Amino acid sequence: MTPSFTEMWRELAPVGRDAGTRGYRRYAWTGADADCRAWFREQALARGLTYETDRNGNQWAWLGDPAAGDAVVTGSHLDSVPDGGAFDGPLGVISAFAALDELRASGAHLTRPLAVANFADEEGARFGLACVGSRLTAGQLTKEQAYALRDADGITLPQAMEAAGQDPGAIGPDPGRLSRIGAFVELHVEQGRALDLSGDAVGIASAIWPHGRWRFDFHGEANHAGTTRLADRRDPMIGYARTVLAARREAELAGAVATFGKVAVEPNGVNAIPSLVRGWLDSRAADQATLDTVVSAIEEAAREHARRDGVDLTVVRESFTPVVEFGHALRDELNRILGGKIPVLGTGAGHDAGILSAAVPTAMLFVRNPTGVSHSPAEFAAEDDCLAGVRALAGVLEGLACR
Amino acid sequence: MTPSFTEMWRELAPVGRDAGTRGYRRYAWTGADADCRAWFREQALARGLTYETDRNGNQWAWLGDPAAGDAVVTGSHLDSVPDGGAFDGPLGVISAFAALDELRASGAHLTRPLAVANFADEEGARFGLACVGSRLTAGQLTKEQAYALRDADGITLPQAMEAAGQDPGAIGPDPGRLSRIGAFVELHVEQGRALDLSGDAVGIASAIWPHGRWRFDFHGEANHAGTTRLADRRDPMIGYARTVLAARREAELAGAVATFGKVAVEPNGVNAIPSLVRGWLDSRAADQATLDTVVSAIEEAAREHARRDGVDLTVVRESFTPVVEFGHALRDELNRILGGKIPVLGTGAGHDAGILSAAVPTAMLFVRNPTGVSHSPAEFAAEDDCLAGVRALAGVLEGLACR
Repeated sequence: MTPSFTEMWRELAPVGRDAGTRGYRRYAWTGADADCRAWFREQALARGLTYETDRNGNQWAWLGDPAAGDAVVTGSHLDSVPDGGAFDGPLGVISAFAALDELRASGAHLTRPLAVANFADEEGARFGLACVGSRLTAGQLTKEQAYALRDADGITLPQAMEAAGQDPGAIGPDPGRLSRIGAFVELHVEQGRALDLSGDAVGIASAIWPHGRWRFDFHGEANHAGTTRLADRRDPMIGYARTVLAARREAELAGAVATFGKVAVEPNGVNAIPSLVRGWLDSRAADQATLDTVVSAIEEAAREHARRDGVDLTVVRESFTPVVEFGHALRDELNRILGGKIPVLGTGAGHDAGILSAAVPTAMLFVRNPTGVSHSPAEFAAEDDCLAGVRALAGVLEGLACR
Repeated sequence: MTPSFTEMWRELAPVGRDAGTRGYRRYAWTGADADCRAWFREQALARGLTYETDRNGNQWAWLGDPAAGDAVVTGSHLDSVPDGGAFDGPLGVISAFAALDELRASGAHLTRPLAVANFADEEGARFGLACVGSRLTAGQLTKEQAYALRDADGITLPQAMEAAGQDPGAIGPDPGRLSRIGAFVELHVEQGRALDLSGDAVGIASAIWPHGRWRFDFHGEANHAGTTRLADRRDPMIGYARTVLAARREAELAGAVATFGKVAVEPNGVNAIPSLVRGWLDSRAADQATLDTVVSAIEEAAREHARRDGVDLTVVRESFTPVVEFGHALRDELNRILGGKIPVLGTGAGHDAGILSAAVPTAMLFVRNPTGVSHSPAEFAAEDDCLAGVRALAGVLEGLACR
């Protein structure tokens, strides 16, 4: 007997969970991550699947011959953001094993190899870059760039991989592996409320919104908070605050999202007017033109406020990911397999599926999240909806791999 | 030959200065502080003064018999805020030695003992509490409270004192010492622009404004910045930003000051809506009623905005110092000595003089600061103004101690 969805869920639940926050801290190449990876290997072996770790540390569990080509792959990731929820990542991996079990139990005859994958370091919580495992495999991150990644303690990615028993010397693009994949389908908990609003348990992804990160540095003048007249101040906190509100306003007007979630202040003293307030803007929209409009308007507002306050502003785009439109052929096929009544929705979040879509026909299934909360211990999906997700994924695998 | 004002200034200038920021990092009981303290001792010995360190680590250099009573004491402190300026503190100590030199050179006949003092840990940059040396001496800080102070590395105040060769077991109130002081006069660089605006090189303090620190905790809901609709957010950064602007507006209306200079965000991730934004408000006003009005209005605005955003707000008053009105007798005497044309001004900054004023007749002299900038490497006073401060202080010492 292989463990059921519920049993797998229960096994993985305590791994890397913080006793205080109840959130997960499964950062790449740490002890908690190693426990997750050991769990994945056990699941593969318990099912008699062919287990392997690729050159970039991604894990694979194969049913059928990995070398045969035109494989159907499903999976997601097991690492987490700081104090993340239980669903983002693991739901896709557990559902993959459960769907494979369902498929085998039904006696379906496989015509293509099938694999479950766990991609390494999807969240980028430790080294600051998301989707490292899939990026390396797809050749979207060079070995040199990967070697330069450091965590907050100064430990490099290769050092961390080595400490976890993964050879960092081997990392690099893996076009041969990708060429043997005919379709990749990632199931993921929805990170918004579109399915809740439409009343569906499962949806199909249309596209990943273009998104970027911009760093706003407001340079003012450090001064004594008790003695400096308001008129004599060049307080960068004021311009920062106005920009936070401008971001909310512009995003609202455009139907986009814009967030200041990270701030660094210098000297950050209670009785000191700051010399520097650095705020990071994360903004995403359904299309590039809208995103450009929103970010330009926020930057313009920030410049205007900074100028009025005698504060210098520099804005740096730290990262940008263009829109990822999942291929229509595979998406339409999923819709057909699932009966054609499945809502198709865009998402603002990046995923390994978004990275791989450049090289492999790729699709995503979403499972309803009644509150839309994600990247938080409060992230949730009802068990019935999760099981509906497993059934949908099993149907997709059957439709793709048993034709 | 004892070193002149300029020579003393030059000697002290490189101690504890950061090569990058050009600001001072002279934190209590560190190596840079030890160098400052060694310099003070050398100055005392070079002048044939009686040098001593009291039970709380404050340094004293006596001309005349410390036990005689009714002493006139002047001085300030040598420690700094993070990346502080050269003047805040050291100007008062160097001017004290220079004024004493001027007095002796004039052949004046002392009728009261005279001392120069350097108070330990005035800025509180390391252990978070200002004026530790004078508070302990005045009995405004207990040994137990002092023992509980820790720096950012977890080192306690007694451990730090011990490491610096100062016996922490001896700390405590020193009423006998205070009872032998007849007057304390602290010279300090002005930390605002009142003297610049009035066109005077030197002024006399009337009072230290009441001031306090309040911590505003905005508790929202952590969520994914890319996928959470604006309408579904409980983003605490929005309420924080509105409160920063409310603080500026209320302070403007009341002629007070209000500053958010320190912020802590959780989880502080670029792609995460924060679960918590914690901002510290520093506010000061000329009188208690005005300060109460300003802070109440800020808190009310914060509550209103937080409520609208579905964010929970807690406000904690972390510290409060009532108004310190310097005694009129000594202030009037200084004014008489200096010819009656000296502007009298309030200040928003705390000082050892404010602490000691509860136990000893106390006054302060301010030296013009043309930009008003303080607690910053850009803090500045012109040499002519500094020398005018030395002459004024020498006149005060002569007037008080040579009657």
